[in-house]
Amino acid sequence: MLRSRAPMFCNRTVGLCLPLRDFCQTPLLVSTLQERKLLGCLGPRSEISRGFMRRISSRSNEKFASASANASSPMSALLSDAEILPGRSDDHGGVVVEMNGAPMSSDSFLSLLKASISKWRQHGKRGVWLKLPIEHANLVQPAVEEGFWYHHAEPSYLMLVYWIPASKNTLPVNATHRVGVGAFVINQKREVLAVQEKSGKLSGSGFWKLPTGVIEHGEDIFAGAVREVKEETGIDAEFVEVLAFRQSHMAFFDKSDLFFVCLMNPLTFDIQKQESEIEAAQWMPIEEFASQPIVHKHELLKYIVEVGLARFEKGFSGFSPLSITSVFSNRQSSLYLNTEYLNSRSS
Amino acid sequence: MLRSRAPMFCNRTVGLCLPLRDFCQTPLLVSTLQERKLLGCLGPRSEISRGFMRRISSRSNEKFASASANASSPMSALLSDAEILPGRSDDHGGVVVEMNGAPMSSDSFLSLLKASISKWRQHGKRGVWLKLPIEHANLVQPAVEEGFWYHHAEPSYLMLVYWIPASKNTLPVNATHRVGVGAFVINQKREVLAVQEKSGKLSGSGFWKLPTGVIEHGEDIFAGAVREVKEETGIDAEFVEVLAFRQSHMAFFDKSDLFFVCLMNPLTFDIQKQESEIEAAQWMPIEEFASQPIVHKHELLKYIVEVGLARFEKGFSGFSPLSITSVFSNRQSSLYLNTEYLNSRSS
Repeated sequence: MLRSRAPMFCNRTVGLCLPLRDFCQTPLLVSTLQERKLLGCLGPRSEISRGFMRRISSRSNEKFASASANASSPMSALLSDAEILPGRSDDHGGVVVEMNGAPMSSDSFLSLLKASISKWRQHGKRGVWLKLPIEHANLVQPAVEEGFWYHHAEPSYLMLVYWIPASKNTLPVNATHRVGVGAFVINQKREVLAVQEKSGKLSGSGFWKLPTGVIEHGEDIFAGAVREVKEETGIDAEFVEVLAFRQSHMAFFDKSDLFFVCLMNPLTFDIQKQESEIEAAQWMPIEEFASQPIVHKHELLKYIVEVGLARFEKGFSGFSPLSITSVFSNRQSSLYLNTEYLNSRSS
Repeated sequence: MLRSRAPMFCNRTVGLCLPLRDFCQTPLLVSTLQERKLLGCLGPRSEISRGFMRRISSRSNEKFASASANASSPMSALLSDAEILPGRSDDHGGVVVEMNGAPMSSDSFLSLLKASISKWRQHGKRGVWLKLPIEHANLVQPAVEEGFWYHHAEPSYLMLVYWIPASKNTLPVNATHRVGVGAFVINQKREVLAVQEKSGKLSGSGFWKLPTGVIEHGEDIFAGAVREVKEETGIDAEFVEVLAFRQSHMAFFDKSDLFFVCLMNPLTFDIQKQESEIEAAQWMPIEEFASQPIVHKHELLKYIVEVGLARFEKGFSGFSPLSITSVFSNRQSSLYLNTEYLNSRSS
């Protein structure tokens, strides 16, 4: 009962059952490496025989045509847009495909993908962007088998890319940097807003540090600094300028980090510390903050204190943001620069 | 010949063949959604019966134990480290797993993954990082089925994450920004180095622009600016300082962009333009550059020219880099700031 000398394998999408050997030799029925491994198919995938093609042509001819299409076959010239993946052109001669909607079997997807690449190649397309929502995780493997590679990922999707021409690809790189902020909030009594964290490298060390945090997706640097100060200490503060920024590499996994030190002006003074992350928070005389041993050892901290004091005492200038508009996209962005020159332009 | 009333399905890894209904009901044999769809299994996956478990216990007991392990089962307490995925602890109470080596079937992987999560949960672990090289693309789907989601991806791998505790996850965000540079290279004759590109928004418009480019993986801003000027024009130039930077959102797909305008001092003057990307390059009187209509319309360009001239004529200060060392990692990074204050510290 448990074993059969001639096991049959079925592909319910196509509606065919065959002995293992025939099943394995039929790209229409078992097309991905994963399926082949699962079923125990051995050896390289053979081309389907003309005889077998005729046998099934009456029931799934359209689908088979898509699966077999390639640039050298006259079949591909017959394909309509309904038989390829839906895509839109980008500004660089490429195609962007977003897979949405109902689940698709990896079989059907692979057939469409092969036909689509053939069509796009005929049309002289270059890069192909394939956005797979996480619900379509079953399509990652067939896309990789077809020669796609990963470009970037967010929690809800994976973006893959493919380069059609024989030339070197000119696809843009992925995001390379995480952006963090540190808030230098100083009041008129020369006290800085200082915190002790519950976790992290310095937890339990007794060291007082500046409020810090990571910029969220799509967040402005100045807005992130205001948010972090409010979250960690309950203090409302206004952003004044960027005093300095640090670029470091291999900061998390193999990504880089840009850390912006922001001068902030407090608008409220009663501290309400964040219970989940902050052990303690206080207004601390800057000389006391600066006298902590770690401030002397850690160059970033040493310079932050020096430049913060220089700004406070000597009018030293950092970079403050101006809202600017792009003539190309009509979108707004923020340009950070030393605005002293703006005041001296007419001099 | 083509159809069978009682098709048998085999899993060659386990060495069992069963009729479709039994095959579909056996997690050990068909465990992922993709496999279930491929085989045409219908309805929700049932728990395996105790009777069937006893039937196969003599041939694959260890594997089955792994596949069935969960936190509420005493079975999981019997698992040794050899039966879970190899992982190392991180600094935040989590586990990092890198899948390397020989291909693994999604069946075997899913069994190990379930057993591993059970074990890590017992040990109070929090975040789980799963790095899947692109060669293991077949393991993406089973990981997603187990509750993993995407964190980030590079061409050669996909990083997935999972959060074991019931609390809100505190996993760090993915890289959010691409970093670009624009080079303001000005010589003593008040001429700026200007180019016309072969592709892009301004190609064919006759507009002269500054050399620009995207920072490569792990590259310093100052090094990227030097590289881009050399690549596009053949000019050797030294980095002086960052004159300004712009943060913009939704710059490519849904990622943000940080663009650093860099003042550069030319060391050579004979232009050798890059054939592949640059249509033309020249030294151009700054007044002529500034008089181009687009410079007046596009605020970024207008400010770049203004701030560049202010720096050249009035000694306006931007941010220049200092090499600093972290007391925590002993690694070097670059801190960009207005170094004027350093010269005035003792005053």
